[in-house]
Amino acid sequence: MELLYEGKAKRIYKTDTPNELHVQYKDDVTAGNGEKHDIMEGKGRLNNEISSLIFEYLHDFGIESHFIKKLSDTEQLVRSMKIIPLEVVVRNVAAGSITKRLPFESGQPLNKPLVEFFYKDDALGDPLITDAHVKALNIASDVEIAALKTKALKINEALIELMDKMNLQLVDFKIEFGKDDQGIITLADEISPDTCRLWDKDTKENFDKDVYRKSTGNLLDAYEAFYKKLKGAVL
Amino acid sequence: MELLYEGKAKRIYKTDTPNELHVQYKDDVTAGNGEKHDIMEGKGRLNNEISSLIFEYLHDFGIESHFIKKLSDTEQLVRSMKIIPLEVVVRNVAAGSITKRLPFESGQPLNKPLVEFFYKDDALGDPLITDAHVKALNIASDVEIAALKTKALKINEALIELMDKMNLQLVDFKIEFGKDDQGIITLADEISPDTCRLWDKDTKENFDKDVYRKSTGNLLDAYEAFYKKLKGAVL
Repeated sequence: MELLYEGKAKRIYKTDTPNELHVQYKDDVTAGNGEKHDIMEGKGRLNNEISSLIFEYLHDFGIESHFIKKLSDTEQLVRSMKIIPLEVVVRNVAAGSITKRLPFESGQPLNKPLVEFFYKDDALGDPLITDAHVKALNIASDVEIAALKTKALKINEALIELMDKMNLQLVDFKIEFGKDDQGIITLADEISPDTCRLWDKDTKENFDKDVYRKSTGNLLDAYEAFYKKLKGAVL
Repeated sequence: MELLYEGKAKRIYKTDTPNELHVQYKDDVTAGNGEKHDIMEGKGRLNNEISSLIFEYLHDFGIESHFIKKLSDTEQLVRSMKIIPLEVVVRNVAAGSITKRLPFESGQPLNKPLVEFFYKDDALGDPLITDAHVKALNIASDVEIAALKTKALKINEALIELMDKMNLQLVDFKIEFGKDDQGIITLADEISPDTCRLWDKDTKENFDKDVYRKSTGNLLDAYEAFYKKLKGAVL
């Protein structure tokens, strides 16, 4: 298969079917825009299993994504999308970068879910941008910006309901959207502990990549534990 | 008089009249959040003269500000305001920080005027914030955010008309707003070459603080030349 794109955590391949792509989840773990990097055998499998279950859950919730089906332990078949170059972050509780940029303390609940856009550009360090910048850079129109926010908040509601069943707090998450062949803005990329902050509601234990960022424990154990909880919640 | 506040470029004093303050323009010149700092005799006078003329011009244009009257070479009487902790930046042409943060080249015209909010907090480096952050930090409501943007764009229109008469391009400017005793959002602070980028339309010569930031010439000569042009345009 022809490799179309290799990112930090996934490889994207062309398939024989137009508008369908093959995604392979890698064992690479990175943090700090690639400054920290390790290979952990089994991490690609865990994120593929988890992301597949979450995309299926969202589909049942009425939220479409690029996901078609799981192909193997580490592979998915997805619809081809024109990716919108924004990292869309939804925050329910302040943690991570926002506590460094602004006067919020880690763990401080926000009065309502906050949506942020970051411009996907490694060389510029994926900067925060406003709606006005999104328009000035011709990334999306007013109507599309509104659709991105509405969809992000709906996904947040669905994920909160799911995490509640696992006694987890959905602190924040990062998603990406694309436009499908009909021009419809559709959830793409992945949803996994790589792209969320997930805290045990009682102990505040982390089940996400902060375990790696902050070197507080074994990342694979945390992801495996999350995967078990998730299977219990969705099946 | 009781000193209420001393900033990088101005001192604010209490007066005997409630709701009125005395502003003294200082000779200090700073750049890079105070990293570069000099004293230039006559700079306070120039900015006071310029800012007074611009506030009077805006008043005639139907835009109210905190300005009441010029008291002396370096002093103004202003209405007391509850300052909104935002630096409101309007950009017509990309220059300065936006060319470092985002893929815009210096001198690139924007397809329409762009309004940015920066949270006034020296310790955090006055970070860019979005409308959602403004609300999450309880700085302003949706209606107030809309008023800030509408007023900023109206001031931009008025200033462009004025600069046109001086053959200058208004590249960008920073303003601050306060709420007066009626709760009305009102232009405050100053408008001067310290807070604007002003380029000769033909030669692109700078008549603003970039002369100091980039050490390309004598700042006082640039401000004096701008003041002369301004007097010619408004009188």
